[in-house]
Amino acid sequence: MKNDFAAWMTVIQHRTETALERWLPAANAAPARLHEAMRYSSLGGGKRMRPLLCHAAGEALGADPQRVDVAACAVELIHAYSLVHDDLPCMDNDVLRRGRPTCHVEYDEATALLVGDALQTLAFQLLAEHQATLAPERQLTMLVLLTQASGSRGMAGGQAIDLGSIGLALTVEELEFMHIHKTGALIRAAVLLGAHAGAADAATLAALGHFANRAGLLFQVVDDILDAEGSTVTLGKTAGKDAANDKPTYVSMLGLPRAKELAARLRVEAHATLDACTQDTSRLHALTNYIVDRSF
Amino acid sequence: MKNDFAAWMTVIQHRTETALERWLPAANAAPARLHEAMRYSSLGGGKRMRPLLCHAAGEALGADPQRVDVAACAVELIHAYSLVHDDLPCMDNDVLRRGRPTCHVEYDEATALLVGDALQTLAFQLLAEHQATLAPERQLTMLVLLTQASGSRGMAGGQAIDLGSIGLALTVEELEFMHIHKTGALIRAAVLLGAHAGAADAATLAALGHFANRAGLLFQVVDDILDAEGSTVTLGKTAGKDAANDKPTYVSMLGLPRAKELAARLRVEAHATLDACTQDTSRLHALTNYIVDRSF
Repeated sequence: MKNDFAAWMTVIQHRTETALERWLPAANAAPARLHEAMRYSSLGGGKRMRPLLCHAAGEALGADPQRVDVAACAVELIHAYSLVHDDLPCMDNDVLRRGRPTCHVEYDEATALLVGDALQTLAFQLLAEHQATLAPERQLTMLVLLTQASGSRGMAGGQAIDLGSIGLALTVEELEFMHIHKTGALIRAAVLLGAHAGAADAATLAALGHFANRAGLLFQVVDDILDAEGSTVTLGKTAGKDAANDKPTYVSMLGLPRAKELAARLRVEAHATLDACTQDTSRLHALTNYIVDRSF
Repeated sequence: MKNDFAAWMTVIQHRTETALERWLPAANAAPARLHEAMRYSSLGGGKRMRPLLCHAAGEALGADPQRVDVAACAVELIHAYSLVHDDLPCMDNDVLRRGRPTCHVEYDEATALLVGDALQTLAFQLLAEHQATLAPERQLTMLVLLTQASGSRGMAGGQAIDLGSIGLALTVEELEFMHIHKTGALIRAAVLLGAHAGAADAATLAALGHFANRAGLLFQVVDDILDAEGSTVTLGKTAGKDAANDKPTYVSMLGLPRAKELAARLRVEAHATLDACTQDTSRLHALTNYIVDRSF
């Protein structure tokens, strides 16, 4: 079962890479430097957590994997754009990402700005251009879902709250509010878009939405634990940077033992929400465990 | 007729402002600083040239103006996002826009980065969320059109070419290639989205596409003339900045008299392409004249 899941993950990571390869503009198409930098920033790295969640939900709903690819790549491109902009000097000013120089270090700041801009556009272009579900109305709903998750009341809003929180004494509730936006919204979109690709009904969408909310927070708590405990080498990005940037994290607020307790509780809750679905959600169960076990 | 056109422009500008007011997140909704800055960067200024073109095309096709509002605001939000990012220190490093401090001057660089990101997302959100034409399939086509015009093979690509051209000796053809992407693509999208809102047939879309290509270049040539001749006060943005940045322009390449000749020729061609339409394109004719007459 564990081997089967590992093999499944490899298959999804590989097909996501292949699909992104195909849908990203060719590196020699004009403007070549921009396209090369777009490919540099979105290919050949990352755990593809969002595509994995998208495909896992799609599989539970019996969706055509080729349709899920559209949604999975759209979500991954939004994630990739956010990393490029997040790493810029005016934001986190980070030099290392997925074990390689960040985009503005490898290229330059202006190019990195345009790379993020164009990756965002490409995400929505894919989801408008390629069939991602059965009916065009539902595809518009998927676009609404992804734009809401990405915009000022989703991911970008979460980053703004994050910016505003540096050096402040947040409550755990405020920290949770920030993460629900900054990382949770896109993780939720990944799960729900996979479900939409399989034409899920309202009850299933609601249950998967609850699951995704827990999984998104779980992901962030584990990320904070990794950032506090991990080394730069295993993370593939600069470790300890949240503490260095004086950013509040679950570890800085709760301490390591209680952060781990919280992760354990969120894991249990995530599994429980999946049990409300009548479909076979074994991939989503396994991914929930994977989110936690990558760290300890 | 001239008064009628001026009154029509005022009506469209006003309804665009009202629609943007309504569709932008409230300034007091969390995260308030981001939302305030998004409103600062997209309300209360600008000629609204793209919404004017969008409504003019929509009117020619008998489109419901409320549907055209959706497309017009989507295009305008893409334009607004591009200005905010274009003004950033790593790009044009400009401090004045529409007679006011640019977003990163009024707020800060990180906020301006997120403002641009979130305005782009909002553009696609509007066009996915609100009915912009009769059939959902056509609305997906409109989304494809706007994403193509905005992305790395459209506007963002044009900005990348622009970046790469600083200090280089371009040919007039290369300059034209840059502008077709940088400003032309979005002007073309504005016209075609208005036409789609009115369910235009393929022949009309083709004719309007030809018109928009000429109008887009005309707009840029006139902009270069304005930049060379105008004062910072009448422009509402820093005049002479292209020359100061060592950027190639039609004026720097052709000289002022030949740039004006080119503008005159493009104006004639734009009018001629409209004559291929069977519809009443008088608003588009008038806008073509307005594009030129705002300068001399």
